[in-house]
Amino acid sequence: MTAATRREHDLLGDRDVPADAYWGIHTLRATENFPITGTPISAYPHLIDALAAVKEAAALANEELGLLEPRKAAAIVAACREIRAGELHDQFVVDVIQGGAGTSTNMNANEVVANRALELLGHAKGQYTHLHPNEDVNLGQSTNDVYPTAVKTATIFAVHGLLKAMAVLQDAFARKAVEFRDVLKMGRTQLQDAVPMTLGQEFSAFAVMIEEDRSRLAEAVELIHEINLGATAIGTGLNAPAGYAEAVRKHLSALTGLPLVTAANLVEATQDCGAFVQMSGVLKRIAVKLSKSCNDLRLLSSGPRAGLGEINLPPVQAGSSIMPGKVNPVIPEVVNQVAFEVIGNDVAITMAAEAGQLQLNAFEPIILHSLSESITHLRSACRTLAERCVSGITANTEQLRATVENSIGLVTALNPHIGYTAATDIAKEALATGRGVAELVLEKGLLPAERLADLLRPEVVAGSGAPVA
Amino acid sequence: MTAATRREHDLLGDRDVPADAYWGIHTLRATENFPITGTPISAYPHLIDALAAVKEAAALANEELGLLEPRKAAAIVAACREIRAGELHDQFVVDVIQGGAGTSTNMNANEVVANRALELLGHAKGQYTHLHPNEDVNLGQSTNDVYPTAVKTATIFAVHGLLKAMAVLQDAFARKAVEFRDVLKMGRTQLQDAVPMTLGQEFSAFAVMIEEDRSRLAEAVELIHEINLGATAIGTGLNAPAGYAEAVRKHLSALTGLPLVTAANLVEATQDCGAFVQMSGVLKRIAVKLSKSCNDLRLLSSGPRAGLGEINLPPVQAGSSIMPGKVNPVIPEVVNQVAFEVIGNDVAITMAAEAGQLQLNAFEPIILHSLSESITHLRSACRTLAERCVSGITANTEQLRATVENSIGLVTALNPHIGYTAATDIAKEALATGRGVAELVLEKGLLPAERLADLLRPEVVAGSGAPVA
Amino acid sequence: MTAATRREHDLLGDRDVPADAYWGIHTLRATENFPITGTPISAYPHLIDALAAVKEAAALANEELGLLEPRKAAAIVAACREIRAGELHDQFVVDVIQGGAGTSTNMNANEVVANRALELLGHAKGQYTHLHPNEDVNLGQSTNDVYPTAVKTATIFAVHGLLKAMAVLQDAFARKAVEFRDVLKMGRTQLQDAVPMTLGQEFSAFAVMIEEDRSRLAEAVELIHEINLGATAIGTGLNAPAGYAEAVRKHLSALTGLPLVTAANLVEATQDCGAFVQMSGVLKRIAVKLSKSCNDLRLLSSGPRAGLGEINLPPVQAGSSIMPGKVNPVIPEVVNQVAFEVIGNDVAITMAAEAGQLQLNAFEPIILHSLSESITHLRSACRTLAERCVSGITANTEQLRATVENSIGLVTALNPHIGYTAATDIAKEALATGRGVAELVLEKGLLPAERLADLLRPEVVAGSGAPVA
Amino acid sequence: MTAATRREHDLLGDRDVPADAYWGIHTLRATENFPITGTPISAYPHLIDALAAVKEAAALANEELGLLEPRKAAAIVAACREIRAGELHDQFVVDVIQGGAGTSTNMNANEVVANRALELLGHAKGQYTHLHPNEDVNLGQSTNDVYPTAVKTATIFAVHGLLKAMAVLQDAFARKAVEFRDVLKMGRTQLQDAVPMTLGQEFSAFAVMIEEDRSRLAEAVELIHEINLGATAIGTGLNAPAGYAEAVRKHLSALTGLPLVTAANLVEATQDCGAFVQMSGVLKRIAVKLSKSCNDLRLLSSGPRAGLGEINLPPVQAGSSIMPGKVNPVIPEVVNQVAFEVIGNDVAITMAAEAGQLQLNAFEPIILHSLSESITHLRSACRTLAERCVSGITANTEQLRATVENSIGLVTALNPHIGYTAATDIAKEALATGRGVAELVLEKGLLPAERLADLLRPEVVAGSGAPVA
Repeated sequence: MTAATRREHDLLGDRDVPADAYWGIHTLRATENFPITGTPISAYPHLIDALAAVKEAAALANEELGLLEPRKAAAIVAACREIRAGELHDQFVVDVIQGGAGTSTNMNANEVVANRALELLGHAKGQYTHLHPNEDVNLGQSTNDVYPTAVKTATIFAVHGLLKAMAVLQDAFARKAVEFRDVLKMGRTQLQDAVPMTLGQEFSAFAVMIEEDRSRLAEAVELIHEINLGATAIGTGLNAPAGYAEAVRKHLSALTGLPLVTAANLVEATQDCGAFVQMSGVLKRIAVKLSKSCNDLRLLSSGPRAGLGEINLPPVQAGSSIMPGKVNPVIPEVVNQVAFEVIGNDVAITMAAEAGQLQLNAFEPIILHSLSESITHLRSACRTLAERCVSGITANTEQLRATVENSIGLVTALNPHIGYTAATDIAKEALATGRGVAELVLEKGLLPAERLADLLRPEVVAGSGAPVA
Repeated sequence: MTAATRREHDLLGDRDVPADAYWGIHTLRATENFPITGTPISAYPHLIDALAAVKEAAALANEELGLLEPRKAAAIVAACREIRAGELHDQFVVDVIQGGAGTSTNMNANEVVANRALELLGHAKGQYTHLHPNEDVNLGQSTNDVYPTAVKTATIFAVHGLLKAMAVLQDAFARKAVEFRDVLKMGRTQLQDAVPMTLGQEFSAFAVMIEEDRSRLAEAVELIHEINLGATAIGTGLNAPAGYAEAVRKHLSALTGLPLVTAANLVEATQDCGAFVQMSGVLKRIAVKLSKSCNDLRLLSSGPRAGLGEINLPPVQAGSSIMPGKVNPVIPEVVNQVAFEVIGNDVAITMAAEAGQLQLNAFEPIILHSLSESITHLRSACRTLAERCVSGITANTEQLRATVENSIGLVTALNPHIGYTAATDIAKEALATGRGVAELVLEKGLLPAERLADLLRPEVVAGSGAPVA
Repeated sequence: MTAATRREHDLLGDRDVPADAYWGIHTLRATENFPITGTPISAYPHLIDALAAVKEAAALANEELGLLEPRKAAAIVAACREIRAGELHDQFVVDVIQGGAGTSTNMNANEVVANRALELLGHAKGQYTHLHPNEDVNLGQSTNDVYPTAVKTATIFAVHGLLKAMAVLQDAFARKAVEFRDVLKMGRTQLQDAVPMTLGQEFSAFAVMIEEDRSRLAEAVELIHEINLGATAIGTGLNAPAGYAEAVRKHLSALTGLPLVTAANLVEATQDCGAFVQMSGVLKRIAVKLSKSCNDLRLLSSGPRAGLGEINLPPVQAGSSIMPGKVNPVIPEVVNQVAFEVIGNDVAITMAAEAGQLQLNAFEPIILHSLSESITHLRSACRTLAERCVSGITANTEQLRATVENSIGLVTALNPHIGYTAATDIAKEALATGRGVAELVLEKGLLPAERLADLLRPEVVAGSGAPVA
Repeated sequence: MTAATRREHDLLGDRDVPADAYWGIHTLRATENFPITGTPISAYPHLIDALAAVKEAAALANEELGLLEPRKAAAIVAACREIRAGELHDQFVVDVIQGGAGTSTNMNANEVVANRALELLGHAKGQYTHLHPNEDVNLGQSTNDVYPTAVKTATIFAVHGLLKAMAVLQDAFARKAVEFRDVLKMGRTQLQDAVPMTLGQEFSAFAVMIEEDRSRLAEAVELIHEINLGATAIGTGLNAPAGYAEAVRKHLSALTGLPLVTAANLVEATQDCGAFVQMSGVLKRIAVKLSKSCNDLRLLSSGPRAGLGEINLPPVQAGSSIMPGKVNPVIPEVVNQVAFEVIGNDVAITMAAEAGQLQLNAFEPIILHSLSESITHLRSACRTLAERCVSGITANTEQLRATVENSIGLVTALNPHIGYTAATDIAKEALATGRGVAELVLEKGLLPAERLADLLRPEVVAGSGAPVA
């Protein structure tokens, strides 16, 4: 049995397209030309929604400017709304990594919207004389302004998801900071025992790192609210009428609820990928800090007997196929790996941005792919870390306090109270005998027990460094 | 309607697993713990095949050493062969990026093999008293030797595919080198006109680059034939009997047809990711050269009127949604993007390898993911470039020859024949008047026309540099 | 002859130091321990000045809080002012890449300041009983707050230099944008002829890119005004009295003229390198854009006969040791290389930041080194590009205009004026015959000559895209 | 007072050069054009020696082929030998990062050799009519074959130094592997206690990693013995006579003692940077492994009381400006930083290699710079690590053994000897009570003391994993 087809035509000739496909000949050729990753753009729902929003905004602007018949505009708008409601996503079939600066993605969108609009107007798919993918759906646009605008809009929504996930993680760390505010421990620099602190301060630092990163991410996402719709091919706005850029921006802002602005210099905006490089740089910063925090969690929970053993991560699965009872820090480990991926993606994005030439960067599809992967994987990583790890962490309070009392580093803290000479003598004796500093201080009567206890109160130890809560 | 389930038990308690799932409780927990990429390991068929081969080899070795009943061994072997024949791949559901150094991947394999083997023995899934995922399927193994061995085996097969695709591309370039052997053109250094050469030499260089890269890749893949099966947890071979490492290697070599060797120092082999770093470094080298070649193809085909216009890439799709008749170099462009991705992946792999601690690298899952992506995308890129671009390239022979005759750079070639002073004078006059060097040389009678034609014969111009064919 | 020495003592024992050295035993050991790059920290004058400013601010704060005798404080302040005036820089001899989180750099500073202060007080170098490197110069401080604060202060001053150099480059591009405002040319996307624009718009885009990058850099440098002086070892402020952090910040701000702020959470601030990662990410962004612009300049000036030949870069040196008269784009080429270096440095900084553990990042010296190299090399690159290249660029105006008139892409611009059918016919005929579009349009009487000239006026072609000046 | 000068002339006009400078007008312009790093090429003595060797080999080949008068050849050879003996290095003044594909470096060499040869012939500097930098010293050469050949030769010698330093480090680790062969310890995977091993095995793994990396480095350096002398401008050998390539290769091999080979395809060889990318990839591999080893050393020596405390690194300097008695792992820390630098340099080299266009890569100067930095810093790092850290490491043998006896992980080892059920019970009791496994096994009479001791003998624990010595 041969599947039913319809014949379509383009500059290169005729091709048969499955009769029930909403996509057309341009999409068909693209699927043949780019058999690279096997991942269609439908795997990026934010992008599909953004494309539909751009097409809808363009139709509204074109109608408003008298360039598109209201009947056609209404059909295009209706088709776009179906897509934005989650329909027809499976018709977005071109490979996410593609040549052509996103032309195939744009044509896939033009064809799907046109064919659905044709149906809504009572025509069969492919009857482009009634409503044309290029001449109507793409009217006043070019891939070179549609694609970057859609990528930016999609990225903004994805980043909103990441910001929320980061807030969840920050909150998880902050709760632990409060819970552990009275847990004394040794601070370490260069992995060597330094001076006392509280475990609450350690977790507070994790929370603050994420808080700062959220601020940086919020700043970076601001920058990608600047779009270049109206630029058409190279930014001169050729064939887009006066007022078009402003009209389409206004409609797209309204449809998305985003305060989009049109770039002041559209030639520059059409060739520039700086905002994506900046965004990726901030994602890399987040990755670096997340990875550092996970390294610390894994180190602090090392053991149970031959490690630091300061905290316990909640067990979430058996740790070994061969060592019974072993539980591993699998959640921080997966977050580390996402961080490595994000850092690698940043290099890919950097190279793609650097490779732009003259009036356009042809390599935005890999930027979309890498950026989208970084954002969504970081979002999953933050949520998973918060919910499956941080929220269930417990402290080995007694052992932590014992380490402080036993530590040579305590001498630094007692220095102002027992004098430098006595402090040095105590340190030497502790080192030579293996005995604890607190024990020796009491034994030698250098401080009364209450005074020592007072100096080891968490709020004293915490000092000026890190207010908790 | 509630789906039918079976109850399974592990160290953390009881969980209900879908009754028809071949995977079990460990896999279930892993899918919950790692909701990161949404890409299950079934998307890596070479890995699934390799896991099944390792499990089969282990069962055969265990049977041979009298550690596993022949009946159980036979069932495990039969289950593994089904998997290697392409069955049950959909049961490998854990996320490719996972914590735990691959434990979840190994346990997913143990559970699927065990449950299928149970069925083959006439038992229901989950009846582990008859055949156990850990005690029987994983017998004598650890994630820490199974996972890296499976990743290596999978990588070897993937690289074989890449080597073939590179040979196809090399051949496409070499054919063009022959076809264009008589096409004269100006060579350029630093984008400035240099001295004449043939277009055949230019394409020959592309072919030779790939040939050299194939050699380097073949060397790098040799290094990952060294496996650590028999190492168990940390390389001391704890709980693996004497002769086990050799027996399992022998069976795995036979099953895969690969000349695998057991590492001399299993402790080192179990923690070391050097061979993966080296492999990724060579993939990066390939990416760099491919990207450079594609940059050249795009540059040489720039135009049609305001570019270099030396060659024509075959049109494979319409180039613009707005500019009719525009055809873009979309195939080289997609190859460039794959190259950027591979270079980014190399950084991710580098970071993952560096992050290994003490007796194990817990981050091999991201190494698998990145390496696999790099290899398979490069393979697609090479084939696509060969078939959809290089093989259809044509040359603008007349225009190329005219440029040579017109070029100032020709003076350098005529220098030994007309003398330095005359050459300099000609160059100056050509620059001042905009006229061609060949024309001036003939006009001034510095060389007879036949002699000049002789000096511009392709085989003379090609010189000693690059034998074609 | 034996050089005169003085004997100094530390925890590891006695060592002889050259009698005339202002540095002491800690510095001596560091020079022996870190024979890595051969580059002493004196090669980073901003860092030396910043260290002296920190030491001076600390002495003033300590005096104010009654912790340091006025006589000692005055001597320390006087010594620091000498250093800030450019004296004694040659005494900063430790290798820039060093272990110990900057301890050796801090101790080098403590020793030089102490010995110079001793001299000013009438003592010999090494008479530390009168004024001690640690107990007096380093009073209330720790390497862990001194070093990052000094690195930040040094970075701020270095960035100010870069911002100025970027302004010079932006201005050079902007002047050319005005100069070339009436020069018509073909715009290109994906290296293929697209639609007309002006050369002024092209240079305007270069200028705007830098302007945006300057804004981003100015934002990033704001973030490193947050310092952690007062944190001491790990951020708890141990052994620093109440009010110390605020006092030292106030004095350092006054000395440097910078609006420094003390971090709200000193534990977090002491371990976090996020601001450096962000700064490096922005430097990478600048590098990407600069490299793209230089790629364009090299491409547009390719030729003279077998290239695009749109613009001419001023010749600054002979281009070839073998091809007479060849002039190469050496200035853009060196800028490209600086960009590659900056992008590589960003990876080094990323890895160093990720490797921080618990309460400190021990790897700040490589961050200092890489960041400083990126900033100063970018500064040199921007100035060199502006002064030795951009300011002398000329345009091949006639050739550019001819290309527009000859180009098929012109059809897109004439489309609305001659109708789609006529436009398509013209395009086909132009392609088939090799003739120019303008010529054909006039020949066929599709537009009167004046109307065509009108449509090709620069201000019409420039469209809405990019207002110049 | 005005310094004495001589006037020189080039294509751009006249310039005054200091009378005593061996370099000339081309070098002068280059120093003005590239004020980037402030580091002259004289800081790369291997490169200067290699340039002189190339010039000497070319003079000998030219004389042999009758192209250069013996008197001139002799003078050039003598000048080159002086340079190779360490003279005149200060005359190599152009910035290491330069545009022009190394032209300025080559011209600097041509001018210094010519002027010294002129002196040897009894002429004044600058009397180029007697012996010319381009026409005599550079005869039959081009920057495009001289520079890559010199860079390769220099790199080979630098790598020889690195290979030796790696051997020293390998030996230091291997000696410790023998010294610690009887020291029992817990192995760890994912930072969690796994199963017992010996400390000797841990150090043996460090040694084997370096041994493997040395093999890879030796392979990579083989690839850069392929040179392109004789290629001249683009690989066609234009203006180089028949036999020249072979003659100059023969002489250069003899002068350097290196088995150099001429590339089969000189066009390809002149544009290809693959061997440098491969070399850098292997250096990155070395960096990754070194960094991992240093991470382990820092972790194992963490403490002294609140860390793992397994080994002690020799103290090489005081660790803190504020915490008395603190000693930090400064040597491993500096090695980590070198590793980060090398990994960053690899990205810079990758980008530079990818940016090559058509017949030449113009960006080899940054490749030279980055590669040279990576090699020499790694060499220093390896030696420093061996001599100032590894060779002085001691083990806390008693504490290590106690941890094994106390560890739950011991159960895995005893499993085959006391049975799975008993083992599980012991593990549970140990976890619940905090008591040691060995203690419980003895108390319950599950094994006689001698048998337990026997199972904990180092040679039994070491298993099949890692033969020491």
